[in-house]
Amino acid sequence: MAWSANLIKDVCLTKSLWNSTISLMDVDGKRLNVIYGLAKRYAAEVKADLKFEKTMDRKEALEDSDFVFNTALAGGHSNYEIQRKVAEKNGYYRGIDSVDYNMVSDYYTIGGYNQLKLFMDIARDMEEICPEAWLFQTANPVFEGCTLLTRETKLKVIGLCHGHFGYIEMAKTIGLSPKDVKVQSIGFNHCIWMTSFFYNGENVYPLLDKWVKTKAEIFWNNWKPEYDDVQMSPAAIDMYKRFGLFPIGDTARSGGWKYHTNLETKKRWYGPLGGFDSEIGWARYLEDLRKQMDKMFRVYNNPSIPVKNSFPPFMSGEQHVPMVDAIVNDRESMFQVNIPNKDAIKGIPNDVVVEVPAILSGRGVQRTHVDKLPKLLMLHVMIPRMLRMEWALEAFLEGGKDLLLEWLLNDQRTKSLEQAESVIKDILALPFNKEMAEHYK
Amino acid sequence: MAWSANLIKDVCLTKSLWNSTISLMDVDGKRLNVIYGLAKRYAAEVKADLKFEKTMDRKEALEDSDFVFNTALAGGHSNYEIQRKVAEKNGYYRGIDSVDYNMVSDYYTIGGYNQLKLFMDIARDMEEICPEAWLFQTANPVFEGCTLLTRETKLKVIGLCHGHFGYIEMAKTIGLSPKDVKVQSIGFNHCIWMTSFFYNGENVYPLLDKWVKTKAEIFWNNWKPEYDDVQMSPAAIDMYKRFGLFPIGDTARSGGWKYHTNLETKKRWYGPLGGFDSEIGWARYLEDLRKQMDKMFRVYNNPSIPVKNSFPPFMSGEQHVPMVDAIVNDRESMFQVNIPNKDAIKGIPNDVVVEVPAILSGRGVQRTHVDKLPKLLMLHVMIPRMLRMEWALEAFLEGGKDLLLEWLLNDQRTKSLEQAESVIKDILALPFNKEMAEHYK
Repeated sequence: MAWSANLIKDVCLTKSLWNSTISLMDVDGKRLNVIYGLAKRYAAEVKADLKFEKTMDRKEALEDSDFVFNTALAGGHSNYEIQRKVAEKNGYYRGIDSVDYNMVSDYYTIGGYNQLKLFMDIARDMEEICPEAWLFQTANPVFEGCTLLTRETKLKVIGLCHGHFGYIEMAKTIGLSPKDVKVQSIGFNHCIWMTSFFYNGENVYPLLDKWVKTKAEIFWNNWKPEYDDVQMSPAAIDMYKRFGLFPIGDTARSGGWKYHTNLETKKRWYGPLGGFDSEIGWARYLEDLRKQMDKMFRVYNNPSIPVKNSFPPFMSGEQHVPMVDAIVNDRESMFQVNIPNKDAIKGIPNDVVVEVPAILSGRGVQRTHVDKLPKLLMLHVMIPRMLRMEWALEAFLEGGKDLLLEWLLNDQRTKSLEQAESVIKDILALPFNKEMAEHYK
Repeated sequence: MAWSANLIKDVCLTKSLWNSTISLMDVDGKRLNVIYGLAKRYAAEVKADLKFEKTMDRKEALEDSDFVFNTALAGGHSNYEIQRKVAEKNGYYRGIDSVDYNMVSDYYTIGGYNQLKLFMDIARDMEEICPEAWLFQTANPVFEGCTLLTRETKLKVIGLCHGHFGYIEMAKTIGLSPKDVKVQSIGFNHCIWMTSFFYNGENVYPLLDKWVKTKAEIFWNNWKPEYDDVQMSPAAIDMYKRFGLFPIGDTARSGGWKYHTNLETKKRWYGPLGGFDSEIGWARYLEDLRKQMDKMFRVYNNPSIPVKNSFPPFMSGEQHVPMVDAIVNDRESMFQVNIPNKDAIKGIPNDVVVEVPAILSGRGVQRTHVDKLPKLLMLHVMIPRMLRMEWALEAFLEGGKDLLLEWLLNDQRTKSLEQAESVIKDILALPFNKEMAEHYK
């Protein structure tokens, strides 16, 4: 629902995409009705000439599609939290998926059989029903998911995230006007690093260095971060010092278990809430999501109030709709996308999905030249993160209990074989993991 | 001394290498005298026409050399054990170098600044004095060391180990006569896997499977292993089950921390002594080394007894001297060597040293076609092991305290930042690590 609200608003505000048909699909009929109702009212209010359909049948939604947006989390946050609790009982603080270089909550890696299965099911349906359509993969894990989808299917897949906009916060904090800033950030989804940083055509990395040296401490003295204020956290600056490039967006939420062993440690590196992914920060985020849902239900239930009063008619900043526009109407523009590497970043295999800037237009995706990542960063962050992705995909594709165990043996928190075996047993015993249990039997 | 005894014996017994000059070099004058004295007496006894020289000056030893054997452990076992104790005090059981996929004691990875420095110093001297000579690198770490030496110098380097002969023990145990067995084992030094296994031209991997299934348990019931009996240990069989290929030789001593968290765990997987690298097993090994030294001193001090009574005139089985013979006298033969990959094993970069069979002759080293390693093994063993090597070389080449810290953050045993910082501080404070401390300041 959260994503749909933004994307519907954007398409309503993009005249060059009018006359399109938007098919909304959800497994939850109530949510579907709300989104559908709000979409129709919103379009009418802003006089957007769009046709909306709703269905609970995925195949029906895919019929005649040119673009498919997948924003679904299989089992929702509630299942994620149940699974997390089971893992915490076995000594895995914040769950087995909150792991080195991926501390982002609800970003499944090894525990996400259901989520990757859903990705593949949608993709298989697309191959049958709309094989020429673009799949904009927004649901996480974008890194694991897009690598899987581009390897296993022939679909045109682009992974999308908004984390790269983190540079705006960074620029503002050090006193630069974001609109004159040009940044290149590359890597894997949630693991991107600012390889270049220009302000009115001048390299301003030295300015950032100066801020770190002379102003960071003062900044933190008066710092009252919200849960999502991680871009200028001590963790982010420490990552910069460790690896030589500035971590952008969600990247700053990870950085290895050094910042994440327990709540106390998280607080030290991310401020009093312990950052986005602590038990405090994440609870606030889920609460915000609930409020957002409640608001949508409230507006839906009150047809006398214009929807645009609650959702003002400005573009959301998300890339999806402008990307469709670029492709459909051949408006050549640069976007931050997740696509197979194909020699973009040196030292990463070609069939691994990377997050890089690329040009989209009527001819499709055109890669641009990007910088190299420093050796230290490659050795200590990129390759280990890539390896986790490979372990996860191998487990998802091959099955068998041993592959879950091999993964967990590499987890910093695993103290004994018995502990790893126990958490696997408990997670596979969850009712919603029945198919997963069969796969990893 | 231990290596020299074997190598001198072998060269005395290889008539086609007579007329050579063998220059013995040691930083310990007493040991040097013993080896030199024994060598001369032995040659006289077996009527080998060889010239021996001794020197404590490395450069003098290198003068006019065609082959250089490096078998030295910088600081010896005593320094290794001191450093290990300091690490154990900080919570690193068996020391910081006894780590996932490298549990072999005295095989430095990250703690071995002095050892890698010695390798490089010897190599730099060779480049100056005997740039055309072959360097047979026998001192560990062969994997880290040979990768370093082949990347950083233009010398002809071959790494040598005897672990691959572990297949003999395996063949005997399952009831095959080793002399009719043909085995191919490939990987990294101390991390080699039996890719093919033939007996009189027939694939006998199924026979091994049958033994594992029906006889292993019975075998272990009556098993009274010496410290070095690891080839048919429960750990080795478990590794085989996990990764699909049989681990050969020293490979079975590692296999991840699963087998090594503490002495109790080691006993479970390696028998009552806890294997080669437990505090019990390793102490016995060091005791055996001491006895061997004592014996050499005893024989040396008693010139009336023929040396060959104590060192019977049979070839040791080590590859060094036959390899020299193959190169010098163009006797084409197959050896197990550590050389840069150059497309031998798929998925390993070309500048990483692998352990593979190769043909040696007057024309030098000729690679042979080797099999692929299974994906699971690549993902869960080879690449992580390779990554540790890269982390170690990066630290050795670049210096700075942070690189030691980054390494240790990846260690399963590191529970906190403070612990990692503390062990680094303590190790760098050791008197024999003065130069290392400067490097990692």
